[in-house]
Amino acid sequence: MKRRALISVYDKTGVVQFAKALSERGWEIVSSSGTAKAIEEGEVEVVEVADLTGVPHMLGGRVKTLHPAISGGILARRELESDMADVDTHRIPLIDMVVCTLYPFEETVRSGGGLDELIEKIDIGGVTLLRAAAKNYRHVTVISDIADYDSIVEELDKEGDISVSTRQSLALKAFALTSGYDSAITAGLSSELGRDMEEQEEIPSDLPLNLKLAQPLRYGENPHQTAGLYLPSLSELPWEQLAGKPLSYNNILDLDGALRGMAMMQKDVGAVVLKHTTPCGMAVADTVGDAYNRAFECDSLSAYGGVVGVTRTVDLDSAKRIGEHFTEIVAAPDFDEKAVEYLAERRPSLRLIKWNGGRVMPWQITGTWSGLLAQKDQLPPLPSPDSGEWIGPKRLDLWEDMLLAWKVACLSKSNAVAMVKNGAAVGIGMGFCSRVFAVEFAASQAGDKAKGAVMASDAFFPFADGLEKAAEAGIVAIIQPGGSVRDDEVKSRAEELGISMFLSGWRTFRH
Amino acid sequence: MKRRALISVYDKTGVVQFAKALSERGWEIVSSSGTAKAIEEGEVEVVEVADLTGVPHMLGGRVKTLHPAISGGILARRELESDMADVDTHRIPLIDMVVCTLYPFEETVRSGGGLDELIEKIDIGGVTLLRAAAKNYRHVTVISDIADYDSIVEELDKEGDISVSTRQSLALKAFALTSGYDSAITAGLSSELGRDMEEQEEIPSDLPLNLKLAQPLRYGENPHQTAGLYLPSLSELPWEQLAGKPLSYNNILDLDGALRGMAMMQKDVGAVVLKHTTPCGMAVADTVGDAYNRAFECDSLSAYGGVVGVTRTVDLDSAKRIGEHFTEIVAAPDFDEKAVEYLAERRPSLRLIKWNGGRVMPWQITGTWSGLLAQKDQLPPLPSPDSGEWIGPKRLDLWEDMLLAWKVACLSKSNAVAMVKNGAAVGIGMGFCSRVFAVEFAASQAGDKAKGAVMASDAFFPFADGLEKAAEAGIVAIIQPGGSVRDDEVKSRAEELGISMFLSGWRTFRH
Repeated sequence: MKRRALISVYDKTGVVQFAKALSERGWEIVSSSGTAKAIEEGEVEVVEVADLTGVPHMLGGRVKTLHPAISGGILARRELESDMADVDTHRIPLIDMVVCTLYPFEETVRSGGGLDELIEKIDIGGVTLLRAAAKNYRHVTVISDIADYDSIVEELDKEGDISVSTRQSLALKAFALTSGYDSAITAGLSSELGRDMEEQEEIPSDLPLNLKLAQPLRYGENPHQTAGLYLPSLSELPWEQLAGKPLSYNNILDLDGALRGMAMMQKDVGAVVLKHTTPCGMAVADTVGDAYNRAFECDSLSAYGGVVGVTRTVDLDSAKRIGEHFTEIVAAPDFDEKAVEYLAERRPSLRLIKWNGGRVMPWQITGTWSGLLAQKDQLPPLPSPDSGEWIGPKRLDLWEDMLLAWKVACLSKSNAVAMVKNGAAVGIGMGFCSRVFAVEFAASQAGDKAKGAVMASDAFFPFADGLEKAAEAGIVAIIQPGGSVRDDEVKSRAEELGISMFLSGWRTFRH
Repeated sequence: MKRRALISVYDKTGVVQFAKALSERGWEIVSSSGTAKAIEEGEVEVVEVADLTGVPHMLGGRVKTLHPAISGGILARRELESDMADVDTHRIPLIDMVVCTLYPFEETVRSGGGLDELIEKIDIGGVTLLRAAAKNYRHVTVISDIADYDSIVEELDKEGDISVSTRQSLALKAFALTSGYDSAITAGLSSELGRDMEEQEEIPSDLPLNLKLAQPLRYGENPHQTAGLYLPSLSELPWEQLAGKPLSYNNILDLDGALRGMAMMQKDVGAVVLKHTTPCGMAVADTVGDAYNRAFECDSLSAYGGVVGVTRTVDLDSAKRIGEHFTEIVAAPDFDEKAVEYLAERRPSLRLIKWNGGRVMPWQITGTWSGLLAQKDQLPPLPSPDSGEWIGPKRLDLWEDMLLAWKVACLSKSNAVAMVKNGAAVGIGMGFCSRVFAVEFAASQAGDKAKGAVMASDAFFPFADGLEKAAEAGIVAIIQPGGSVRDDEVKSRAEELGISMFLSGWRTFRH
């Protein structure tokens, strides 16, 4: 029996050649409108879909293939006598292969198509063809990707037919495609209709994430782990890499901290240096170069091989200062041409990232063995000296340093405390299981610089011991959320120690 | 003009009442087979789909609604003269509402349906109806969820019609549903066909994650962040909560560490105590109670309010020991009934988690502002004393302790070192930007217990300084991956210091 292929493609690349190959191998080609025209012009014989269905072109082509003669020809179970009897009775031509590429919904979103165009680009007939063929993969081959044309012809030549294993793979590919397609429609329409998830305050009951590989990575956190960087439908990377080696998995993790640090300091000329996702220095200054040098000094030992983020364009002078040390990444809103040239020459491996200030998702996703945690990815409002409780004197003269310390603590792994003096972090204790250890570590790092410095803590002090250690080191003002059952004890100890303390009311854990 | 609703539902809950409500409000009901029968039995007038299409029931009902008279009636653009002319010419009855619930594919997978049943439960016609109606939401109301019946009737009564805003929301809901449906089909068929992603070694180009809210959470890492725990299609939680308060976001993060620790120690009677996602104690012993006490002792200060995981059933004796301290969670493969009773009485807030040993996904997903990182979630093979390089004497007598130290370092936040003596961690330095700080911290925690102990490091020593600090503290053997450019210097320093050192070749960062 002559085999029959239904071809209905939006993307017509290679379709004439493929139809010709099938035709030469004895297949009958069924097609309609644009696709039929293209194939006919390629001098391949085509049967019009309308000739099979008896239904003329109507509704601007919205319902061409949505007909029992077509869907029946795809869906009929060849092994069922009753199905085959129906096929005979109603003279339904069996279809053995469906070739279909969908209307380009995502591309239309990307190119800024308006609502009318988006709606028109929601493919109904094509998705039905693909899904019907994929459902009946035991009898039907479904091709949803023009990249598969060649291997199909090859298999026909080699085996005389398409194997069930190939048909299975193609069916799974088709369902993955239609799933992703409808996920893109959900995202694209939501955004166009102003019903963006971005705006949503409530946690949604469904979070469709059709992730697409954006950058395969050499390996994951460790060399034995395969890994990749993925983007949800319709998303784009918020940065461009201007120079340097490809980013690694751990680079992207560290870069995340740099971008967050840059976002927090965007009103200032600031710099942050990170190592292993947590800051080892953070500072503001009058120039990018000065901010970098001051951030670097906080823990110059750890800053070796670290990741740097700055909040203003990197000029040649800053580039020269950054180039003095071994660094994995520098992220900035922009780089002067001369700075790129200099750094690419001086440090060819150094990755230069030009960040557009955006981010991929409003939800922060963290995978666990118990499922995926999603939380709104946002900081609390920046503390204001009038919106919290002061214990002891209101040290407005130290407020800018307290705010910077608050930012460093926000960015640091919990439990975290950060000591800041004159616009630069001087000691950071982070990742500790106990708050008092964090204070001790920060104090030992700060040394003499702790004298007269301020300190921030990402969560309340459960006991007064952390304060006592801070006071010993020379800390004069503390910003912390408060909220411990022992707050009264902590407050009166602060007063006794002569420490000015501001309770913001907002915890900023980051695990 | 009389409005028309096409109703085709697999789940017939409430459909008669809804059809009756529409009918009473002047709507014509169109339906077929099972749904039509149910509605007729409810004494509501129904027009048969076959009467509109002129096509009888065939192919076991696979193609009932896949007909231009139906899809045209849904898709016709009421504002376009040409479309309305086609509708007139071909006498296509306009359809103003589509009500459709799909074949229960996911439920069929869950109930262990075989391949034949799964394939039959792939809904083609229903998905086409939903997608067509959602595409034409400007004119058509699409109901894909029986939970929406009541509010639709309410809106009809209140406004006389369904607003475009409601139709938009319902359309977005329908596309989210069909996206999730095809994602479940991809996952379910893959698994049934033995083409599971679980087995895949390569990083896939598409990672469809249709996440469903499994547990809404009170808040996220911090109280100002909304959050939830999500599961991908067809996944289930790998544990059951037997007692205690609901899990918080941070609880689930910490629990993840506990489950990983339990998996690593499953061959032993072991216990791990974690705080802020990283272990503050880990030990093996002859009984669960002893293992717990020994793990607790490593850093009893941090263990306060921590999370505990043990590798064997919690009996009453262990329960009493665990109950002595304030703990957030205890995870175990099982709990004796008396242990549950005792702990629920003694510590009513304590969350008891019975873990089935499984996990939700083979990929570890981590969200960043640059996209989502995915990596194969696996540890390297357990080190074997013959598969690496020994420097100095081969201390097989200390091998079990070295292995335990290796596990603690694997589980700890990088940079991490772990000191172990006689089957219990005695000092853990983790989350540091610099390895030498991690050694100093672990040594200060271990105190005298470091004498004669072993140490593991999750990555190589960049310099010999870490070894020197370890030797000062009394460490006699070290396990580390090696791989530094200064390995030779580190090795000869180990020999000079009389430390036995094993290079495993595998890094185990965990950020």
